[in-house]
Amino acid sequence: MKKRNALVAQSGGPSPVINASLQGVLEACFQSDRIETVYAAYRGIEGVLLEELIDMSKQPIEEIRRLKNTPAAGAIGSCRYKLKEGNEADFQRIVDVFKAHNIGYFFYIGGNDSMDTADKVNKLAHEQGYELTVMGVPKTIDNDLGDEERTIIDHTPGYGSCARYWAYIIQNIDEENRAMCTSECVSVIQAMGRDSGFITAAARLADPNREMPLQLYLPESKLSMEDLLANVDRELLRSGRCIVVVPESFMTDPESQRRDGFGHVEYGASKTTAMQQVVNALNEHGLPVRGQATGQVPGVLQRGVSLHASVVDREEAYALGKNAVEYALSGITGKMATILRNSDEPYSVRYDNVPLSVVANRVRYLPKEWIAPSGIDVTDDFIRYARPLIGDSMPSIELEGGLQRFARIKPVFVDKKLPDYTPCNFQSTR
Amino acid sequence: MKKRNALVAQSGGPSPVINASLQGVLEACFQSDRIETVYAAYRGIEGVLLEELIDMSKQPIEEIRRLKNTPAAGAIGSCRYKLKEGNEADFQRIVDVFKAHNIGYFFYIGGNDSMDTADKVNKLAHEQGYELTVMGVPKTIDNDLGDEERTIIDHTPGYGSCARYWAYIIQNIDEENRAMCTSECVSVIQAMGRDSGFITAAARLADPNREMPLQLYLPESKLSMEDLLANVDRELLRSGRCIVVVPESFMTDPESQRRDGFGHVEYGASKTTAMQQVVNALNEHGLPVRGQATGQVPGVLQRGVSLHASVVDREEAYALGKNAVEYALSGITGKMATILRNSDEPYSVRYDNVPLSVVANRVRYLPKEWIAPSGIDVTDDFIRYARPLIGDSMPSIELEGGLQRFARIKPVFVDKKLPDYTPCNFQSTR
Repeated sequence: MKKRNALVAQSGGPSPVINASLQGVLEACFQSDRIETVYAAYRGIEGVLLEELIDMSKQPIEEIRRLKNTPAAGAIGSCRYKLKEGNEADFQRIVDVFKAHNIGYFFYIGGNDSMDTADKVNKLAHEQGYELTVMGVPKTIDNDLGDEERTIIDHTPGYGSCARYWAYIIQNIDEENRAMCTSECVSVIQAMGRDSGFITAAARLADPNREMPLQLYLPESKLSMEDLLANVDRELLRSGRCIVVVPESFMTDPESQRRDGFGHVEYGASKTTAMQQVVNALNEHGLPVRGQATGQVPGVLQRGVSLHASVVDREEAYALGKNAVEYALSGITGKMATILRNSDEPYSVRYDNVPLSVVANRVRYLPKEWIAPSGIDVTDDFIRYARPLIGDSMPSIELEGGLQRFARIKPVFVDKKLPDYTPCNFQSTR
Repeated sequence: MKKRNALVAQSGGPSPVINASLQGVLEACFQSDRIETVYAAYRGIEGVLLEELIDMSKQPIEEIRRLKNTPAAGAIGSCRYKLKEGNEADFQRIVDVFKAHNIGYFFYIGGNDSMDTADKVNKLAHEQGYELTVMGVPKTIDNDLGDEERTIIDHTPGYGSCARYWAYIIQNIDEENRAMCTSECVSVIQAMGRDSGFITAAARLADPNREMPLQLYLPESKLSMEDLLANVDRELLRSGRCIVVVPESFMTDPESQRRDGFGHVEYGASKTTAMQQVVNALNEHGLPVRGQATGQVPGVLQRGVSLHASVVDREEAYALGKNAVEYALSGITGKMATILRNSDEPYSVRYDNVPLSVVANRVRYLPKEWIAPSGIDVTDDFIRYARPLIGDSMPSIELEGGLQRFARIKPVFVDKKLPDYTPCNFQSTR
């Protein structure tokens, strides 16, 4: 059997365990005698379009092994480049680059946009008679991939670690808020997840018995700033303090939203963040007890702080990367590796694969039955679902000189074989 | 010898190791046969004024032992109540409460304001012929206690853990920024420390060899937004990305500052945070490369996330609490337990005590020789100073049900012996 090369790329925002999936893909490729060389696209699909490919087979194996403990996507990079409908030149370029480098296997680690891209690339290659195996590897801290019934995927790698981050910081903020409530009585924390409330909901894991004065403004509840002010007043009169989690999209002022080059709202770049709007509304409204509202925006920290990585999440992310390669080698193509749940307690999952087309461009929301009637809490069913995902132990962390020792991947590119190319979207942005 | 009671209180913003000092004080008191009962003031000096005292001798010993791993000051609480010059009634009330409960030893864990309060209480008691031993225990993540020559104190407990938080999150943000720089090219992170640049400076520990595109807007450098825009442009043209740390006081718009009931600027409650002002200035100014500026405000997380606690800091905080009691029992009063450095490498310190009056109401800034000529970096001397404080290993973290298991101190108050009292500042605030 003729050996082919493999290519792996990451897409979209990182997660604390995205590199665990990368490691899974790489190690499974290295073990196969049907794969010659494994390339990684530098900075996601942009690296494919620009023919910037890193030969991962030449990286030291001990650095590959460190990927599992390396957060974010710095190792090979990622991007937010969106392959737009109608920009056929980009899709053709991808297939051309694959042909030039004899890529027989394409592994794409990403969210729903990426699964759509992978699906289209797969179809285009087949239309042109180019033999290509395409497998998706799910990744998103938002947990918004798939269906609400969880028949496509139970949860996405990245979510468990982000949930652990939230569980722990809310525990810490409760200690802080309890201590300082006579001067800082309301603590507002802004969560990622604009439409889908899984991240905001994860704050509840800090306090499954509901002992903290904790309010979760789930985006699905569509509550207003007036609702928030009334809820907080009520809690302050009851317990003298309050912890408020708001999604980044909780904004009364649409002028605050700044958009990126592709028209997507980029909440991290907001003119006035949701946290800021809530803190200002509370302080201007006046509080019925001593103290002020203060705010926190963890921002990218919730998708990158390795100390908070969940051991369960990390191992699952690794397994999904490995499985994607095994499926590909067994002749499966146009699918995404997935994870389905057998039981909550004891926590048990099984691995499978689903067609890319059923995942592509679909958003999962927090199921209605997991939202409490108040709209600012989740039900126990959510806790039973999410609790196992944060694991029971600390992840192993490698230190060197007191600092975190991450994998060091050298961005040494293989020789280009094609003429230069300008990606379609580069023409409309700087 | 007649047995006396002891009282311990915390003051001001918490730190990840403030409870380690509390544990040190408590354990040393428990071991002494000259101390009958140890009380903790609930929520700092407010608890003394309101005669809300917790009998710590009745708390389970295993919970006391957990204090070392418990961040923030939630266990017994803290406050920002300032004993003002002229409000003699408050000082008299403190002495009256001490008399009513036979308090012979007062241990006050806090920053420079607190050392001033402790000093005044000590003097007033002695003026009135009341036998009282007062010892201060230093605490502040700001590291702004003492003198720039470090003859009063080398560093304050809390700073090492906050520095470790910054070293680690900057490592994580660098991974993130490297991955995502084609869409999010500038990452702005807001640090605590309004006047004194020690916290902002700690970000440099992430990258002692200066390989990251990292800029630190030390408050001592007094740089303008225009300086920042020019610096960031230059870095973006060089490396395509930039990480910017700004202190919470880095504001062009003084209208943004919100003050607390006592006239202090409360940056956590700002109408427009420093992060927001910088992100907006960058995005409105326009960047010379693809991508946007996005921002993070860790806020109270930098003084409360226990996973980032430094083992060195934790043990020193514990030792200072213990030492304060030992000094008190040896007849020393009106002093603060302190820590002085013997050498950077190997890191070695010695413990001592200094008069409260030399510490009180004095602010330490980052020494001039530790600020790089650019104004946006520190020198290697700072790195040699701060590096040992973050330690070389992970702190032990107790988990229970997947969550952090903190000490559970029951706020059960001892019977009041005095008539109710309204603290002076309560009359002017809600």
